[in-house]
Amino acid sequence: MQAPVQSSSVIKSSLIEPDGGVVVDLVVPESERGAKTAEAESMPKVKLTKIDVEWVHVISEGWASPLKGFMREDEYLQSLHFNSLRLKDGSIVNMSLPIVLAIDDETKEGIGSSSDVGLVGPDGDLIAILRSIQIYKHNKEERIARTWGTTAPGLPYVEEVITPAGNWLIGGDLEVLKPIKYNDGLDHYRLSPKQLRKEFDKRQADAVFAFQLRNPVHNGHALLMNDTRRRLLEMGYKNPILLLHPLGGFVKADDVPLDVRMEQHSKVLEDGVLDPATTIVAIFPSPMHYAGPTEVQWHAKARINAGANFYIVGRDPAGMGHPTEKRDLYDPDHGKKVLSMAPGLEKLNILPFRVAAYDTVAKKMAFFDPSRAKDFLFISGTKMRTYARTGENPPDGFMCPGGWEVLVKYYESLQAEDATQQPAVVSS
Amino acid sequence: MQAPVQSSSVIKSSLIEPDGGVVVDLVVPESERGAKTAEAESMPKVKLTKIDVEWVHVISEGWASPLKGFMREDEYLQSLHFNSLRLKDGSIVNMSLPIVLAIDDETKEGIGSSSDVGLVGPDGDLIAILRSIQIYKHNKEERIARTWGTTAPGLPYVEEVITPAGNWLIGGDLEVLKPIKYNDGLDHYRLSPKQLRKEFDKRQADAVFAFQLRNPVHNGHALLMNDTRRRLLEMGYKNPILLLHPLGGFVKADDVPLDVRMEQHSKVLEDGVLDPATTIVAIFPSPMHYAGPTEVQWHAKARINAGANFYIVGRDPAGMGHPTEKRDLYDPDHGKKVLSMAPGLEKLNILPFRVAAYDTVAKKMAFFDPSRAKDFLFISGTKMRTYARTGENPPDGFMCPGGWEVLVKYYESLQAEDATQQPAVVSS
Repeated sequence: MQAPVQSSSVIKSSLIEPDGGVVVDLVVPESERGAKTAEAESMPKVKLTKIDVEWVHVISEGWASPLKGFMREDEYLQSLHFNSLRLKDGSIVNMSLPIVLAIDDETKEGIGSSSDVGLVGPDGDLIAILRSIQIYKHNKEERIARTWGTTAPGLPYVEEVITPAGNWLIGGDLEVLKPIKYNDGLDHYRLSPKQLRKEFDKRQADAVFAFQLRNPVHNGHALLMNDTRRRLLEMGYKNPILLLHPLGGFVKADDVPLDVRMEQHSKVLEDGVLDPATTIVAIFPSPMHYAGPTEVQWHAKARINAGANFYIVGRDPAGMGHPTEKRDLYDPDHGKKVLSMAPGLEKLNILPFRVAAYDTVAKKMAFFDPSRAKDFLFISGTKMRTYARTGENPPDGFMCPGGWEVLVKYYESLQAEDATQQPAVVSS
Repeated sequence: MQAPVQSSSVIKSSLIEPDGGVVVDLVVPESERGAKTAEAESMPKVKLTKIDVEWVHVISEGWASPLKGFMREDEYLQSLHFNSLRLKDGSIVNMSLPIVLAIDDETKEGIGSSSDVGLVGPDGDLIAILRSIQIYKHNKEERIARTWGTTAPGLPYVEEVITPAGNWLIGGDLEVLKPIKYNDGLDHYRLSPKQLRKEFDKRQADAVFAFQLRNPVHNGHALLMNDTRRRLLEMGYKNPILLLHPLGGFVKADDVPLDVRMEQHSKVLEDGVLDPATTIVAIFPSPMHYAGPTEVQWHAKARINAGANFYIVGRDPAGMGHPTEKRDLYDPDHGKKVLSMAPGLEKLNILPFRVAAYDTVAKKMAFFDPSRAKDFLFISGTKMRTYARTGENPPDGFMCPGGWEVLVKYYESLQAEDATQQPAVVSS
C-alpha cells in the first residue's frame, strides 16, 4: 500500500512545542511589568479563586512545563484520556491532571471575542495575562469521573473547586506580571524549579531523590528517606540530595495546615532525624487533588521538572478513604504500578517502598514485616490526633520529640477552638 | 548527573511483546485440538456469558493484537489510565477499552492456585484455555467512571455486563479450541483480520477505508462513503476499497438487530447505492460499549489490525444520549478530536466528515450546510421507527427502496410483537 498522504493535520498542528529541557519561566521581566500591566488593565477580566492563583503559580514557574498556560481543549482532552500530551516533535510528556481555569456564563459573555484576558486575584490585584484564549465546555461530571475514577460526593477538590466553578474552561498562554507571593512567612521555602536546580548544582548533587508529603514527618518516613540515601550511595552515587517537598497548596480540612507542617519539618531536621547537609526542604506550590494513581504522576512529573531523578513512592500515594464507602478509594498498590508504566515518565527512577510502621518489639519505626504483622502498629493521622488530644505520647521512637511537640501544640489549639465554637453551635 | 542505574524493572518486565505486524491467531491448530481439549477438561472451569464469548472471538482473531488474552492487571491499568499499552520494545499501541473477564468469589475459590483454567461457553461447551492466569480486583465503579466518564445508571454495557459480573478479573493467555461460530446464518460475514487482509490483497486494494456502523445504511452514509472514495482517488490511490463493517456483538435493546441490518446492507449494495466491486461487507465481532471518545479508538485500532489505513469518523462516534440527563453523553466533537490525538494511532489517517442530513430543497441526502440549516431534516432512528410504524415513507432519497422495505418489515414485526405482548402485560 502507498504511504498515507493525508492526516488529521488541523488538530495535530495545535500540539504544543517541546521545552527542550529548559525550565519554563512565565513571569514577565521587571522592565516590561509596567507596560504589560497597563495593557492588562484594558482587557476583559477573569476573577481568580485562591486555588486558581496556586495554579497560576505552578504554571508560571514551570512545574507543569512544557505547559505554558491553562490548558486549551486539546491539552485538556489528552490529559483526561491519556494522562499525557503529544508535542509537536512527536515526543510524549506526562500530564495526568487537567490544569484548567473555569469561568461562568457571565464572565464568558464579558470576554466576548477578545483574544486576551487579564487575570485578577481574590484581592483585586491584576496578576497575569492569558493570551490567545480558547473557551470550551466544562463537563464537570466527565472531568471528575475520568480524574478520580468515581463521582461519589465528598471528594475534597471537587467540593471545594469544581462544583462551585463555572460551566466553561478558558485556556491560553500565561504571562505573570510578578512572582506569586503569599506573605505568610513561608515564601522563602517556595523555591521555583529554577531555584531548586541551582541549589542542587550548588550542593554538587549527583542524584536528587524527591519525597512528596502532605503530613507531618514521622520516623517511618525518615527511615525510608535515609534508607533511600543508603541505597543510592550503594549504587555508586557520591552525593545524593533529598528534596523533602511538602505540598503547599489546597489540602482537605482535616490535614495538618502548612505552617504547622513546616515547623514540624524544621524540628525533624534540627533533631537530626534527617541530615540538613544532604536535605533541601522546600514547598511544592500545587493544590492537592487526592486523585491517587492519576495524581501521583503529576507529583512525580513536577519534581522531574525541578531536577529530581529519583522519586520515592509508597503505599496508596495521593489516596484517601472512599468518600461514601468504607474502603480506600484506590487500591493501595495501583499508585506505584500506574506510575511505573506512565507515558512520559519512562526515564524516571521510581523507588517503591514497603510501608513502615511502629515495631512494638524493636520499639522503633521499621519496614512492615507481614510474617509478624501483630507486632506492628499503624499510626494514622486520626490516631496522632487522639494521642495529642488525650495528652498521651505516641510510642517512643515514633517521632522526634521536637516534632511531636509542634503537633501537640497544634492539636491543642484545635481543641481550644472546638471548645470556643461549641457554645455557638449549641445556641444556633 | 550520572545516568540512572535503577528502574522499576520488576513491573516493566511484565510488559507484553510487540506482534511485529503479524496478525495474532489464537485458535489452536486442528491437529492439537483433541489433546488440548482433554487437557482443558482437567482444569478448573470458568463459565462465560454470551458477551464474554464475543470477546474471546475478538481476541482470538487478533482484532486486539498484540493482546494475546484477557488483560492482566498491568494491561488493565494502562488501558484504563492511558488508553494504550507500552510494549517490551518501548513502542506504544492503542488499547482504549479494558478487555477483561470477570469471575465471582465462588469461581475464584474453585480456581485455587491453578495457573490455567478452561473457559466454558453458555451452552456448556469447552471453548478455550486461559493460561498463566492472574486474578485481581474488579473495581467496577472505577472501571465504569474511567471508561465512560460517568457513573450514571442506565449505561447499556454496564447494566448488561458489568453490574451482574463478579468482583474479580482474570487475565491470561488465550488458546481457543476451535473458531467461534454463531450458526445464525451470518457466519460467512464474520471475516477475521487475516481473511480480510487476504481479501484486500485479492482485490489489489492500495487503500482500505473502514466505516464502522451499528445502524441501517441511509443515503447520507452512502454519500459519505462514496465521497471518501472520490477523495482517495483524487489523492492518487488507484483502487480504494471500502470496508463496510457493521458491529456484530452486543448492542442496546433499541438498536436494529444484526440480521436485519445485514439484510438491509445487502439491499443497499443490490440497489447500487454502494458499488459491490469496491465494497467488502463483513461483521466486526466486538460488543458495543457506547463509550464515545474512548470506544472510537478501539473501533479504529481493530480495523487497522484488519488492514484498514483510513478511518471515517463522523459526529459523536460510539456516543449515545446521557442515561439520566437530556443531553448527549459526549461532546459530539470529542470523538474525532480524541481519536486524532490518541497514542498508538499516530499513523492512522482519520477522515473527519461533516454530518449529512436530508436536504429538503435538493430532495436528497447532502452534507449539512449551517448557512441554510432550516432546509435540512435530521432523520434519527426514532424518526425512522415512527415512519415505519405509521406506514409513512421517509422523504424520497433518504434510503434506497429495497433497504427501507427491510426496515418496514422489521418495525412491523416489532409492532405485531408489541400487540401480542400487550394483553399479557395488562393481565400480569
